[in-house]
Amino acid sequence: MKPLSRKLTFQIPLPTEEDPRSDRDRVLDTLRPGFGRLEMDLTVTRMLYPAIRSAGGQITVTMLWQGEAWHLTRVEPGDTTAFHYGLAADLGSTSVTMELVDLNRGTVAARASRYNLQRAYGDDILTRIFYGKDDPEHLAQLQRAAAETLAQLMEDLAEESGVDTRQCAAMVLAGNTTMVHFLLGLDAFPLFHAPYAPVAAAPGFVRAEELGLKLMGPVYLYPAKANYMGGDVISGLVATGMARSEGIRLFFDIGTNGELVAGCRDFLVAGAGAAGPALEGGVVRGGMCAGKGAVEHVSIRRDKVRLSVIGGGKARGICGSGIVDLIAELFLEGVLDFRGRLQPEASRRVEQVEGEMAYRYADGGRTADGAPLWFFESDIRRFLETKAAAWTMVAYLMETVGMDFSHIQGFDVAGAFGTYIRWKSAVTIGLYPDLSEEKVRCVGNTSLEGARCLLLERSHLEEIDGILQRMDYIQYGAIPGFVETMQAAAAIPHLDLDRYPRVRRWRAQRQRGREKV
Amino acid sequence: MKPLSRKLTFQIPLPTEEDPRSDRDRVLDTLRPGFGRLEMDLTVTRMLYPAIRSAGGQITVTMLWQGEAWHLTRVEPGDTTAFHYGLAADLGSTSVTMELVDLNRGTVAARASRYNLQRAYGDDILTRIFYGKDDPEHLAQLQRAAAETLAQLMEDLAEESGVDTRQCAAMVLAGNTTMVHFLLGLDAFPLFHAPYAPVAAAPGFVRAEELGLKLMGPVYLYPAKANYMGGDVISGLVATGMARSEGIRLFFDIGTNGELVAGCRDFLVAGAGAAGPALEGGVVRGGMCAGKGAVEHVSIRRDKVRLSVIGGGKARGICGSGIVDLIAELFLEGVLDFRGRLQPEASRRVEQVEGEMAYRYADGGRTADGAPLWFFESDIRRFLETKAAAWTMVAYLMETVGMDFSHIQGFDVAGAFGTYIRWKSAVTIGLYPDLSEEKVRCVGNTSLEGARCLLLERSHLEEIDGILQRMDYIQYGAIPGFVETMQAAAAIPHLDLDRYPRVRRWRAQRQRGREKV
Repeated sequence: MKPLSRKLTFQIPLPTEEDPRSDRDRVLDTLRPGFGRLEMDLTVTRMLYPAIRSAGGQITVTMLWQGEAWHLTRVEPGDTTAFHYGLAADLGSTSVTMELVDLNRGTVAARASRYNLQRAYGDDILTRIFYGKDDPEHLAQLQRAAAETLAQLMEDLAEESGVDTRQCAAMVLAGNTTMVHFLLGLDAFPLFHAPYAPVAAAPGFVRAEELGLKLMGPVYLYPAKANYMGGDVISGLVATGMARSEGIRLFFDIGTNGELVAGCRDFLVAGAGAAGPALEGGVVRGGMCAGKGAVEHVSIRRDKVRLSVIGGGKARGICGSGIVDLIAELFLEGVLDFRGRLQPEASRRVEQVEGEMAYRYADGGRTADGAPLWFFESDIRRFLETKAAAWTMVAYLMETVGMDFSHIQGFDVAGAFGTYIRWKSAVTIGLYPDLSEEKVRCVGNTSLEGARCLLLERSHLEEIDGILQRMDYIQYGAIPGFVETMQAAAAIPHLDLDRYPRVRRWRAQRQRGREKV
Repeated sequence: MKPLSRKLTFQIPLPTEEDPRSDRDRVLDTLRPGFGRLEMDLTVTRMLYPAIRSAGGQITVTMLWQGEAWHLTRVEPGDTTAFHYGLAADLGSTSVTMELVDLNRGTVAARASRYNLQRAYGDDILTRIFYGKDDPEHLAQLQRAAAETLAQLMEDLAEESGVDTRQCAAMVLAGNTTMVHFLLGLDAFPLFHAPYAPVAAAPGFVRAEELGLKLMGPVYLYPAKANYMGGDVISGLVATGMARSEGIRLFFDIGTNGELVAGCRDFLVAGAGAAGPALEGGVVRGGMCAGKGAVEHVSIRRDKVRLSVIGGGKARGICGSGIVDLIAELFLEGVLDFRGRLQPEASRRVEQVEGEMAYRYADGGRTADGAPLWFFESDIRRFLETKAAAWTMVAYLMETVGMDFSHIQGFDVAGAFGTYIRWKSAVTIGLYPDLSEEKVRCVGNTSLEGARCLLLERSHLEEIDGILQRMDYIQYGAIPGFVETMQAAAAIPHLDLDRYPRVRRWRAQRQRGREKV
């Protein structure tokens, strides 16, 4: 563990008439042999006197590695090395999560989440972008909202841990390109408008006060590769170690956008597309975010439906992982054909509802309002289109690098969605490639994790540079044949079943099971 | 001329879908091949959009060389290279002078002086030091007073020139160690208290806002070698070129302290001592600063006194250059002996006044208040003690480096005092060494000039580093035999007349002149 920040206590020689060097020089001269280039700005210079002399020369220096030099961020009298903390943050458009990281122990001392205060200017990111467009005052409001969210989280962490979080040595923050633009006070409109060039992709270390934050150390912002390939993904790659991996891996972050990266230590290919809302249950009737009352898992055997409801009570709706289970089970049971059409003859639960076919996955006795819960054919198809887009991204990336799924050593699914989804269901519906379970990892909030990783290991700074340099970013819009590929991928699990030998086997097993009875 | 700041206009490629690099990267990538390491902070990043795109990619970048990297300080749409200014400042304890320097032409566009507003906290520097000692609020007052003086000068220059001085690319400032401590908000007490170690000697480039200044570029502070060897002297060495000189030179800055440096490009030895007040006419009865009514030059032939009065009117007192003339003339005329005693038998103008011998250098008819002006023997002796201290510093430095005056290629006298003093008088009284007139240069405000030099030629940054490294600083207090040497030097011109062959000759000539008549 070589944290981004170091805290060192040592004795510096007190001035004498023979050695009347300045306090500043005596500190820098003492450190220079071990640390090379050093920077000390005026804020820290002002901490030197009388601190050094009053403590008899015993001081503690905090310094941060910023890639080309160590920057002193604090000088204190005496030995204060026991206190050494940093902040890791994931700046999402909906919620923001922050961790207080103990840099001596390498542990998380506290963790807090809050809704992004920017939601006052628009629930979705596009509304906020238009709010800020060409309007410095509105941009300043968006900036302050982001900063205030971070400030409140710092207070939450302080309360929980008893640590004065303003004294942290640094904050490492990851967020998508738009969120980082807003935090910097930059107009994000160019990100959503051809040619999609950011204003700043890699701002690096920024002084906390420039962001309106009361924090001793600076803020490092994970760099973006492109408009839809933000610092949150780069952070995720650091967290999962893809850029250090010998074998080829896939990284898939399912959020508002679906961001996908394929590669290893030798190459990286990336692409992104709108994938999230449908997968997260947002655009499905009766769909809901994972929370109390959401159906998170489903299994079906011969019209018997077993539901697993978050919180254990009655069902109120279905969330992403439940949807994936439901579609997979219906397909394996033969209630759903490979084109996503419900088969009324295969199940008594399939009925005509509101002018279309639907499947009754929860009877009235098991729901919160006593009414049965239906899953509609049109929603199934919408979901399949989204997963087809995601799958096609994966397939195209693999093709770009001249490989197929047999070359994949691991598949990392980031985001809350990935954490709860069942591997078998995701493979069955063709959301994941046909990979064995041990190759699929649900890696959670890797944006936050990558921020913490960098706090704890400064060599990741070089890794990040390398990722940006090696990564090829593909604009999917410009790919010929993308639509045709996507249509094939909208089937369950795929029009070409040879790509899914496992699913073929599972379906056959299930059929045999039904026939036995 | 390679100014510290560069202003370049160029076309950067506009973003396309094939090249959607960020605005920030496109600027940095365009500059990097020619300029190597580049820094762009958030303030400048915020200037990028929509500036670049609205100007069709034609932008002007201002960047400042800070010794290890070019720091971008501004990005503007279009071609604004015609406007390229910097500020040079000499921060004195009494008065502060600032120049607006045209960095395209290498000329001074405007110049202004003001009294230092810190005088509200004490006329002399020691009063201010005790005012600020251990008191952050008082230190903040002293800091603000210095900053406000600079801000007012920036306004003066703006008014005079029509240039918005807040848009200057940088300010280079030189001042003594105490003045720089105050400007930085640092406690200056340790400078005047053994072991005399500064808090910060070489703070380098500081952000203008940290000093409370509204200025686009940063402020460079000339570094100090030691408590009494401040940035004003280092700046003077850059201005006079001593550290680049093949031959050995002397640099003598006669201000509140006398600072002395001997050396050339191979070595530098420096020392300082309290010298100024007496030489500047401050502690002499009837003495005054150079200004209207001050006697600035005196010549005497057989009791006939010719006076040159600043402004041409009646005399009100005598300033430094007049005192040097007066003492020299009295000595050459035989009215003053080599020990500084007035000889009543040699002149009818010598009388007993207020209990001691005095010389009437202005009769009532030539003075503003109608009363004659007297110069007292005790003031002569005080003046001689001061010049002895100065001389001893010179002699000791020469001895340290194993040389005598014959090795000196040039003698630069800095400060207002040096500008008006007559070479012959200064040699006669032994204030200057016995050097020919062409070797003595009165170089004026070299502190300000060195600031301007650095603005106009960035390679001086390396020279400054070299000066600090090579310079040996001597604490005169610790030198054995210093007092004895000083006593010998209190004679006119010196107890050892062999050191002053010119003066011996001049005195003989004058005697022969008197005898002829």
